[in-house]
Amino acid sequence: MAELLTDPDDEVLDQDRIDAVLQAVEAEDRAGLDALLEPLHAADIADLLEQIGGADRRALLRLWSHEIDGDILSEISDAIREEVIESLPPGVLAEAVRDLETDDVVDILEDLDAPQQGLILDALTDADRVAVEQAMAYPEYSAGRLMQRETVVAPEHWTVGETIDFLRKSEHLPDQFYHVILVDPRMQPVGYATLGRILSSGREMPLRDIIEDSFRTIEATDPEADVAYIFNQYHLISCPVVDAGGRLVGVITIDDAMNVLDEEHQEDMLRLAGVGDESSIADRVLETARQRLPWLFVNLMTAILASMVIAQFEAEIAQLVALAVLMPIVASMGGNAGTQSLTVAVRALATRDLTAANMGRVIWREGAVGLINGLFFAVVMGIVGWVWFGDQALGLVIAAAMVVNLVVAGLAGILVPVMMERAGVDPALASGTFVTTVTDVVGFFVFLGLAAVVLL
Amino acid sequence: MAELLTDPDDEVLDQDRIDAVLQAVEAEDRAGLDALLEPLHAADIADLLEQIGGADRRALLRLWSHEIDGDILSEISDAIREEVIESLPPGVLAEAVRDLETDDVVDILEDLDAPQQGLILDALTDADRVAVEQAMAYPEYSAGRLMQRETVVAPEHWTVGETIDFLRKSEHLPDQFYHVILVDPRMQPVGYATLGRILSSGREMPLRDIIEDSFRTIEATDPEADVAYIFNQYHLISCPVVDAGGRLVGVITIDDAMNVLDEEHQEDMLRLAGVGDESSIADRVLETARQRLPWLFVNLMTAILASMVIAQFEAEIAQLVALAVLMPIVASMGGNAGTQSLTVAVRALATRDLTAANMGRVIWREGAVGLINGLFFAVVMGIVGWVWFGDQALGLVIAAAMVVNLVVAGLAGILVPVMMERAGVDPALASGTFVTTVTDVVGFFVFLGLAAVVLL
Repeated sequence: MAELLTDPDDEVLDQDRIDAVLQAVEAEDRAGLDALLEPLHAADIADLLEQIGGADRRALLRLWSHEIDGDILSEISDAIREEVIESLPPGVLAEAVRDLETDDVVDILEDLDAPQQGLILDALTDADRVAVEQAMAYPEYSAGRLMQRETVVAPEHWTVGETIDFLRKSEHLPDQFYHVILVDPRMQPVGYATLGRILSSGREMPLRDIIEDSFRTIEATDPEADVAYIFNQYHLISCPVVDAGGRLVGVITIDDAMNVLDEEHQEDMLRLAGVGDESSIADRVLETARQRLPWLFVNLMTAILASMVIAQFEAEIAQLVALAVLMPIVASMGGNAGTQSLTVAVRALATRDLTAANMGRVIWREGAVGLINGLFFAVVMGIVGWVWFGDQALGLVIAAAMVVNLVVAGLAGILVPVMMERAGVDPALASGTFVTTVTDVVGFFVFLGLAAVVLL
Repeated sequence: MAELLTDPDDEVLDQDRIDAVLQAVEAEDRAGLDALLEPLHAADIADLLEQIGGADRRALLRLWSHEIDGDILSEISDAIREEVIESLPPGVLAEAVRDLETDDVVDILEDLDAPQQGLILDALTDADRVAVEQAMAYPEYSAGRLMQRETVVAPEHWTVGETIDFLRKSEHLPDQFYHVILVDPRMQPVGYATLGRILSSGREMPLRDIIEDSFRTIEATDPEADVAYIFNQYHLISCPVVDAGGRLVGVITIDDAMNVLDEEHQEDMLRLAGVGDESSIADRVLETARQRLPWLFVNLMTAILASMVIAQFEAEIAQLVALAVLMPIVASMGGNAGTQSLTVAVRALATRDLTAANMGRVIWREGAVGLINGLFFAVVMGIVGWVWFGDQALGLVIAAAMVVNLVVAGLAGILVPVMMERAGVDPALASGTFVTTVTDVVGFFVFLGLAAVVLL
């Protein structure tokens, strides 16, 4: 029965295959291209399209666009999706989008411009178009956009046997489903049974006797971040989505939730680093430069602010140049300690581990950690400053500044993201800049100010 | 049928419930505590234990430790798990771990000290202990540690009817399963069928006619990062795990893979920020300070290195103090641009979007982005420097330093993590420090060096 087992060597996207694909494209060898690409998973073909250069991609699409299907379109990165869609003959595009579940069509539509959205909506059957338009009526990044509308439901009084008979007669079951949702006569979900329990129970077993203990629903207008949270927190595999009246309108499965979790993480990471949200390695140079510029600009403003603090002490620096040599150390240590504290706080806010219940203790803890490490590095830098410049008082000044700045860094690292969250702003968004501004300004001011008072 | 629907208000862990729990603990009201905690999901009880203070937690455990079950143990953060396990009477601990699937026991064992591992192993039945010890024989962070050993298999020649009859007769099916795995006589998996397809097909349908198109297996010794990747890339729900001989030894389900993905993300984020891996908001002050100290120490070394560059130009700074005022701006802009480029690169390496196929183009792109933004900020800072200090040449010097440092930042941001990956080191681990060291050193050197040549 070896024919059932797919040869794993046939499925891998490695450098050899990429090279072979590029050769086939150059030779305009359509059959060779088919043989190389056909065994690949749609996600790998999408990766291939993203990783090759623009000219190669256009040449590949000219030869092979008739083979692009819905799965490839749905896997492809936003950065090149418009380009791929424009390259498709209308018939191919129509067939591709008709293959897809409506939630995948919605996912594709969200990031397209209006003319391309029109192209895709026109390609759908009337029923699908209505379903997609209804989904697009939910707010962006809501559960309603994520859900698939095809659900598998059973009246709450059914038995396992009735359910299996019904499923065997159904013609349009979703591609993936893991539960049968029990609904009351008003279509309100009241519980669900896993397919595993249904399959392993006798035909006479009432469904309601094998429903899961833990049952949750999501409202269609809930933000998708909440969806990712409840799947992760409660280990859900699928979750019914209800409207404001509690009626079942769709279902979200764990693969969509995993996708959202992945995107939320990426967003947090990129936002913490001051990179635009939509950034991808496949973006073009100008687009990338444009995305990153605003954050650099904000950083420039804060760097100038820190420089204005330094400028207040020009006379002192002219008198004792060692101050200019040592001051970046105080600022840099504060910036690093602040980033540590900030990252832990942003992560804990995202996973909802930082709440009103432990806020006070966590703030105290960050201050205490700053104090302990501040004292340690005060000793180290006190000695370094003293030995390097042969000036004991200079060592004392940098030691004191180190303690103050590391405590401030710890507190700023937790207080800034918490205040941003309270204000309804994503704490990952600009916390980094605020925190390092605080540590730069405090670091320079305390070090230079103490030096002015003590040394000069 | 309202009794089927769990009242959502009963299930939420909010501040009111936490306050009520703390009051019940203080009043030693065991019945009240039961009423408050019993409706909560194990994950929420674990969160509660993490979020309350140490004294409250110990008091709660004294009153309520007999109710701690396996699910709560498995949800609880590593930071407090040892404390909770120590508080449990041996009988409670034994019952709790016997409830769990072996993969969850392994997950708990991994982070415990030897005496506590012994406690738990002793509490298991002989069969489970053997299974757990076999799993622990796989390398840490491998698929073998993650998998559950209970699988649902069928010979490849079975029909849907035979499969359903077999499942109905089975006494020990796993809690969660989504596929029936088809195996050949040597127990090598040859495909799998979703429960949905099985349920919706007639009894006479051969299983092999309804297996999924796309079928992958994982080797038990594969690293768990690969597991997270293939679930995310190919949208798997479960995946058979095989030994070196290709025989089925277990199965990994998507909830475990989602957990790994979540942990990998957290690790990347914390490592990029120079925070120890195991960091959690529930760690104690001294533990946290100890985790963060080594990274701050590395940062101190690099900051001192940058200061030594500045020290080479003491004479120039004494002559023109404006240099001391402006030099942190050049370093700060380079550090930020480098972090942007680095974060995108680390993320792309983790998602395997950055490969040999596009490496050259991405390096070029980062250099070009650095050049474009460098030119923009050169103009801005050139004007600022000129106006602020009334010195046109000073403006030119800072402009030139800005261009150089932003190009270097872009290139360092991509080259450093790529080289670390090539060297087999996690690129998130120390890239940040290396990149900012490069941008600090280059920033100070180029700016002060140019100033020395041009201005003085």
